[in-house]
Amino acid sequence: MNDSESIGYQIDEGEVGLVDFHDFVSKEPFEFESGGLIPELTIRYETYGQLNANQDNAILICHALTGDHHCAGVHSLTERKRGWWNFMVGPGKPIDTRRYFVICSNVLGGCQGTTGPNSINPQTGTHYHLDFPKLTLKDMVKAQVRLIDSLGIVRLHAIIGGSMGGMLTLQWAVDFPERLDRYIALACGAKHSAQTIAFNETGRQAIMRDPKWKQGKYDPEDGPFEGLSVARMMAHITYLSDAGLEAKFGRKLKQIDGTKEHFDVEFEVESYLHYQGNSFVSRFDANSYLYLTKALDRFDLYRGGSADSVIDAVQAKGLVVGFDSDWLYPPQGNRALVENLLKRGKEASYVELSVDYGHDSFLVRSPELYELIQTYLNA
Amino acid sequence: MNDSESIGYQIDEGEVGLVDFHDFVSKEPFEFESGGLIPELTIRYETYGQLNANQDNAILICHALTGDHHCAGVHSLTERKRGWWNFMVGPGKPIDTRRYFVICSNVLGGCQGTTGPNSINPQTGTHYHLDFPKLTLKDMVKAQVRLIDSLGIVRLHAIIGGSMGGMLTLQWAVDFPERLDRYIALACGAKHSAQTIAFNETGRQAIMRDPKWKQGKYDPEDGPFEGLSVARMMAHITYLSDAGLEAKFGRKLKQIDGTKEHFDVEFEVESYLHYQGNSFVSRFDANSYLYLTKALDRFDLYRGGSADSVIDAVQAKGLVVGFDSDWLYPPQGNRALVENLLKRGKEASYVELSVDYGHDSFLVRSPELYELIQTYLNA
Repeated sequence: MNDSESIGYQIDEGEVGLVDFHDFVSKEPFEFESGGLIPELTIRYETYGQLNANQDNAILICHALTGDHHCAGVHSLTERKRGWWNFMVGPGKPIDTRRYFVICSNVLGGCQGTTGPNSINPQTGTHYHLDFPKLTLKDMVKAQVRLIDSLGIVRLHAIIGGSMGGMLTLQWAVDFPERLDRYIALACGAKHSAQTIAFNETGRQAIMRDPKWKQGKYDPEDGPFEGLSVARMMAHITYLSDAGLEAKFGRKLKQIDGTKEHFDVEFEVESYLHYQGNSFVSRFDANSYLYLTKALDRFDLYRGGSADSVIDAVQAKGLVVGFDSDWLYPPQGNRALVENLLKRGKEASYVELSVDYGHDSFLVRSPELYELIQTYLNA
Repeated sequence: MNDSESIGYQIDEGEVGLVDFHDFVSKEPFEFESGGLIPELTIRYETYGQLNANQDNAILICHALTGDHHCAGVHSLTERKRGWWNFMVGPGKPIDTRRYFVICSNVLGGCQGTTGPNSINPQTGTHYHLDFPKLTLKDMVKAQVRLIDSLGIVRLHAIIGGSMGGMLTLQWAVDFPERLDRYIALACGAKHSAQTIAFNETGRQAIMRDPKWKQGKYDPEDGPFEGLSVARMMAHITYLSDAGLEAKFGRKLKQIDGTKEHFDVEFEVESYLHYQGNSFVSRFDANSYLYLTKALDRFDLYRGGSADSVIDAVQAKGLVVGFDSDWLYPPQGNRALVENLLKRGKEASYVELSVDYGHDSFLVRSPELYELIQTYLNA
């Protein structure tokens, strides 16, 4: 079958099918935690299902670092690739769109429709580039609140996300405790370890040392694609696991036709990584990558102080899920978070799942995770 | 105390003290496993202690990927930095230079004196660059044999090394079984996992995508330093451990004077990594890095086949040491190697040490490791 052929997309009964994104434009200036200001804010988002009359069935999904608002369905009937959490969101799926009104929005600072460093500053008519203010996860949550307000939702039934998305659910629970009933945080933690910061910084350096980065003032058509690609290759390794990679690739060789040069791809795992790096640059902006990874590194739910005073604000109940093969956000960080919540009398549960896909386990089909999420949402 | 001040170096009683390197020049052409040829070969090496009359007290130390021949002592009395295994080699130390004649040589393909891609090809008068033949660990061992021959040593008392050095000891035991009594292989394994190949390939891409790499034909004074630095930053993370980094750096902030730009160093671990990356480029050649990492990725002690037929050749006894915090060459790979040796009736032992320094544990002072090595060498 030819990949470039236009193929009618078969929508299964259990899928949300054809969807469209929306742009919420807020003409109010937006102030960042740092004090920085942007004159207006666009948030790109999608919704699935219907908001009920009581407006109490809304679920907000928060995406991970390089994810986006398109978490379920397809944008056209000739598209074969579904949203990034298609197996999780739909009629009869764990996040059941027959029952819930599901919202997923691209984060502030992102590059898939929501205002970020690659957006045009309406005051200057040029890209923000590094004039975009210093960004934190609190800012991302604050921007999401504007969207939720605009949809007329006072209180969310649940907020759910993995990795950065998981940390955003935690930030919601702390900053806007009265606006959610429950949160589900997958594969995250209260803050980055030194090792995770180290990997992120190496990725940022790969981008910033690419001469095409030009202090962030690159032409989007001619950006630091090589550096961004290297950053992604490295990051991608950290999203998987040693055992998972070994099972999938081991030392299998890649068959290459024609003359081979020194240092051409030789192993299948190399070819796979090249693909990951190269496809990433066509969908992601380098400056966004810098801003978002930095926001993640700076994130500390406890704000550098005691967990207690921060956690005392939480009202929602929470489910935290760690994955045993996740070495980027290891189980112990997830577990410690719940211990801190329990110590302060909060309703919180920890589950550790045994899945071989490393950090990306939350993105992979897993009956155990399905059941867990479905039950926690409906309880 | 001013670091730039010239300070008389105090040689402790237990140190080898002032040493000099030697260059062994072999004017015979050297043929690589691939069939490639170089017209002559220089091997830079150091020795410590004296070869005895029976010529049976020689120990060969094999260095890791970015190590060199300078494993003990200092090159001048104003130098404060000792060789990379100074605590291991010296009078009264685990590798006791009062008793043993210790040799350490820079590997073939390296860039610290031994012939490598950055050397001048005497037939053309220019750098080999990528005309340097495809390199394997078998080639490195074969080159070391020439050196050992030139020193009049028929049989080594021991060969010892960590990481790539450990794999070289294994290759010696397989390829030249009658030339060593024992080998000690630290923090290695019989072959790279998919994950380790993936990290190496990402490092190579960081170098090769730096426009200054120029298909390997760069001016050594103006090479792909940014790419090499990024490759080193990433690799350095893999040499340590999550727990080790957390204990050393955690989320400590770096104090920076003056105006801070977006994405300047903020955490101490970032500053540390920058230092590692930047200092690396002043001592290592990018093409060497490509050749050596590729040789490592290709290394498979069992040659893609059954362990049995390869292992049957081994005559020496061996000690293999894994470190529990090493996630680049995890303990299980070291353990499996010894299991394979034992299954074929070889004399081999496995020890797993609990040290927090990750892969680099073999480079770190550890009384347990001292004792183990000393005893195994003297038994």
